[in-house]
Order: sequence, then structure tokens, then C-alpha cells
Amino acid sequence: MHERKDPYPSRTSGKAQTIPRQDQVVYSRWSAGAPLSEDETRAFDRDGFILLRDLFDAGEIEALCRDAKRMLTASNGTLDPDTVIAEPDSGAVRSVFKVHEQSAVFARLAADARLAGVARFLLNDDVYIHQSRMNYKPGFQGREFYWHSDFETWHVEDGMPRMRALSMTVLLTANTPYNGPLMLMPGSHKSYIVCVGETPDDHYKMSLKKQEYGVPDDELLTQLAEDGGIAAPIGPAGTVIAFDCNTMHGSASNITPFPRSNAFIVYNALSNRLEAPFGPARPRPEFIAARTSVRPVVPVSGPLIQSAA
Amino acid sequence: MHERKDPYPSRTSGKAQTIPRQDQVVYSRWSAGAPLSEDETRAFDRDGFILLRDLFDAGEIEALCRDAKRMLTASNGTLDPDTVIAEPDSGAVRSVFKVHEQSAVFARLAADARLAGVARFLLNDDVYIHQSRMNYKPGFQGREFYWHSDFETWHVEDGMPRMRALSMTVLLTANTPYNGPLMLMPGSHKSYIVCVGETPDDHYKMSLKKQEYGVPDDELLTQLAEDGGIAAPIGPAGTVIAFDCNTMHGSASNITPFPRSNAFIVYNALSNRLEAPFGPARPRPEFIAARTSVRPVVPVSGPLIQSAA
Repeated sequence: MHERKDPYPSRTSGKAQTIPRQDQVVYSRWSAGAPLSEDETRAFDRDGFILLRDLFDAGEIEALCRDAKRMLTASNGTLDPDTVIAEPDSGAVRSVFKVHEQSAVFARLAADARLAGVARFLLNDDVYIHQSRMNYKPGFQGREFYWHSDFETWHVEDGMPRMRALSMTVLLTANTPYNGPLMLMPGSHKSYIVCVGETPDDHYKMSLKKQEYGVPDDELLTQLAEDGGIAAPIGPAGTVIAFDCNTMHGSASNITPFPRSNAFIVYNALSNRLEAPFGPARPRPEFIAARTSVRPVVPVSGPLIQSAA
Repeated sequence: MHERKDPYPSRTSGKAQTIPRQDQVVYSRWSAGAPLSEDETRAFDRDGFILLRDLFDAGEIEALCRDAKRMLTASNGTLDPDTVIAEPDSGAVRSVFKVHEQSAVFARLAADARLAGVARFLLNDDVYIHQSRMNYKPGFQGREFYWHSDFETWHVEDGMPRMRALSMTVLLTANTPYNGPLMLMPGSHKSYIVCVGETPDDHYKMSLKKQEYGVPDDELLTQLAEDGGIAAPIGPAGTVIAFDCNTMHGSASNITPFPRSNAFIVYNALSNRLEAPFGPARPRPEFIAARTSVRPVVPVSGPLIQSAA
């Protein structure tokens, strides 16, 4: 068998360590025609994320929230049951995957120029949807998402070769300091944390509920947090957080009465399509990591929804 | 048997409901000689808590932190083992009770005029230590404390007759928006939430790890949070939060690398000493709820520690 060289080995040894990022963060050169300002572009490169406010109008946000709620409360048979993930304790819906194929308005959102255009600019390539999901984090009992680099998982478990992907998070309830907002470690995307342990087959079924492999080492996490601090951008529904695939992020539990529901659309560069996983032999299923349904997104301008008028 | 009239029944029926507070919040009339400003006094009355900054100097804070750490890492036999409570999952130390009897510096803290003097003023009575503890909430895996009114538990399980007690929380690490700071619902102290369910005997052993009885109803919690919002006062080590015994409070999990350690000293009015519990027959042990070791605190002025000079 041909042995691939792995630029980002992880879960292959007992030693946790940091290796420097070997890929660009912003792949385009900024110019006046870019869909981000020069400051925003620089901030994304430096911090590994940016906050984008007021991209959507009230009607668009309402349509997204309505459809997020429809999927949350969908009766059996409406959604692909594999794509619905429950909280480990309460059984409440934690995530629904593949929302861009199970909802017309989320399909339209994923193609929207305000998101896909920015992704194409930052990655300087055609992009496709690697993954999409709603994370609901219900009130009272919403469980935390522990710190992780998405890329570490996508590389090891899905075979994403390089760091040339990003997530767009669209807040669909207010994210406040209190209801378990997304936390990110600024600058962490410049380091790759090699995790210890191997990955059992079919690990993903558990890991979507509670991560046990690909968990970064305490000491290295502390170093990242001491170097760059912790940020928790907040805002009303409709706010967007764009973050690099290797930015360390997580979120605390939500005991407030107010759910924290965020949509995630993950764009990968077409040139960065999945190969065989670098870890386990069997790749994760298509609804978590698009392998065959790879279609370049053609950005669509204009409002998300037809005006009712 | 003589039937006591219970002004604050809870856990006696299947119906969650709210009954209005039947006690004062601030028992003294403010005057120029008071240990709080008029604004602070009014805020405590209105919100059920106040933040007190810069009460202690750097040397005092360091002495408290050092002794908090000593108790956290104390070898077997140094502390009363009953007073040390572990996290349900990780086994890490979650709380140490009766710190004012297991540490000279915490004994001195509990008697300090800056805390005890304020408690005496707000409660307009001699005060004694009903309970004291360190809550450590370690980094990475610190578990949440779910919403509760202290008074509901102290009344039902310990037999505290009326709302005439308060907690002083002394932050002993920085409390940030990220590491699971104390959250309070402003104004919630004016309503008493009647909880459903009965209380099993020896419930306290579990409840110190994870509350299952005396849990307020979702709908009533939502109402309180919508009425008054949620506040999470933050600050560096040494900051003090004083809050009424019936203020609804809790805190989220802590996945950051930075522990969130807070000391709690609970002062009860001498006239409000414990009676027989209103719920279970057997009262909780002395280290959680002082019943026999009731000594009025004589406030001590001056620095917490002797200067090293």
C-alpha cells in the first residue's frame, strides 16, 4: 500500500504536542472588491474568527428560526433519523445534521453570497458544503461542547487533507454571556494540537454527544488560552461568526431558560476534498462529512426568502 | 404533636407555584453610619444582591487563596472527610464545607467587619455562621450548579424559619464570563418558588453533587428570568458578592483551563435560628447547617492577616 505522508498526525502516539500550522489562513489577497473589509480579513487571519453583524434582515432571520424550530420538533419520518442527535442525559435534541438537504431555507442559506461568497474569498477556491447542522442547546439542561479543533477530527476521522475549510455559524437565538455561547481561543488556529489515543470504529456516534477522542491535552489547552485568551462573541439572532477549521472552540452548559440555537455551515475548498481517513479505516457517514455529494456552491445574491408582498 | 404553621411550604404537593416573600430584605433603616452606601442598600433590597469591590488588599487575597489551595490539596486526615465533596464525574474536589472551622484565615474572614458588619446591618440582628464553604469548580471539567434558592433548601431541609439570612461570596480566582461565574436573577428574592416532590432522607449527600429535589419548575424559572433578567457579576479574586438567602442563583459548567473558586460565608440572624426541618424528619448534619454551634459573630476590624513586616 502506498504510504501517505501525514502533515498533521494525531491520535497515533501517546504524546500530546503542538505542531505549527503548515497552511495559510486567508488564501486570497485582499482587494477593494473583496466581500470583507481589509480589517475583517486581517482579523480573521490573526484571530481565526470574525463576527459579522446585520447580514440578514428580520424577515430572513424569522424564516430561519421558524425552520430551525420545525426541524427541532419534527415528527418521526420527517427527518433522516440518523441526522438527529439527542443529548446524552435528557434525550432532548442536541443537533440535526445535513440541514441544507432537509430544509429549503437552509439550502438557500448555505448558497447565500453573504456566506458562500466570503468562504470563496477566504479559501480562494470553489467551495462545497462539507457539513451542515443545527446545534440546539436547549434551556435548563443544554450540555457543553468540549474544546476541540474541527480540523483535527475532520483530518483524522474524515480524511480532510489540509487546513482550507471554515465554518459559518448563524446564531438563531440570542447568544448571551449566560446561555453557553460559542467560545473561541484567538490565535489558536496557528497551532495544531496532536491528540493522544486511537479512534475506535463508529466513534462518531458517541462523539456527537460527548467527545472522548481527539480531546486536546490540558496543558496545551492552558498554553493556548494563556497566549491568546478566550473570546465569546455574542449577539442577537442573525449574527454570524466565521471561524477557521483549526480554531480551538467549545461552549459551556446552558442552565438558563433560554435555548442557544446556532446553525453551522462548513465550507471546504474544492481542492481540499476528502481522502481516506488518516485515522480509522472506515470513514464517517456522508451526513457528517460529504465525500460523494460534492457540488461546488454557486453563490446566490438577493434575499433569502421571497417577500410575502 | 403541635402543628407549626409553615409560611413557606415546599415539596409538600405536586403543584409548583410562586408565593410572595413575607419577610423584609433589608432589616435596618439606612443612616450615614451604615457600612453600605444608601445606593448599595437600595440595590440589595431591589435586586437581592450587590457587588463589593476592593474590600481586601493583595496580601489578604493571597493569604485566602493560599489557604483555599491548601484545603483543596489537603492529604487525608487533615480535613474532616465528611466536609469534602467530590464532583460526580471526575472525582475532583467540588466543595469543602465548614472552612471557618478548618482554617484560621477563613475563621478570621468570617468574623471580619467588612463582611460580618454588613451582614449585621442588613439583617439588623446579631449574626452567626449558618454555613461556610469553598466551591472550587475546577478547570476543564467543573460542573454546573443548577438554579436554586438557598432558602428553599435551608427552610425545608434545615428548618430555617424565615428569610433573614444572606451569603457573602468571596471570589478567590478571577470570575470571568467564561469560567462559570455565579449567575443571579435580579428581583427573584421577592418570590418564593414552591417546589414539587418530597425529600428523601439523607438527600443531602447527593444534592451537594447534583440537585434533584427542591428544583424550581421550568415555567416559573422562565418567568423570573423574563421579569428580572440574569446577572453574572464578575471580577478579580477578592471581589465580594453579597446575596439574599432567597435570590435565585446557579452557575454553568467550566470548560476553560482556569478554575473558578469562590468562598461562601452564610450569615443567619440570631433570632432566625434553626428549628426542626419543615420537610424530612432528620436534619442535615452540623457542617452543612449549624444547629448547636451557634455563636454570635463579634466583628473584627483591621487587616485579615498580620503584616509580615
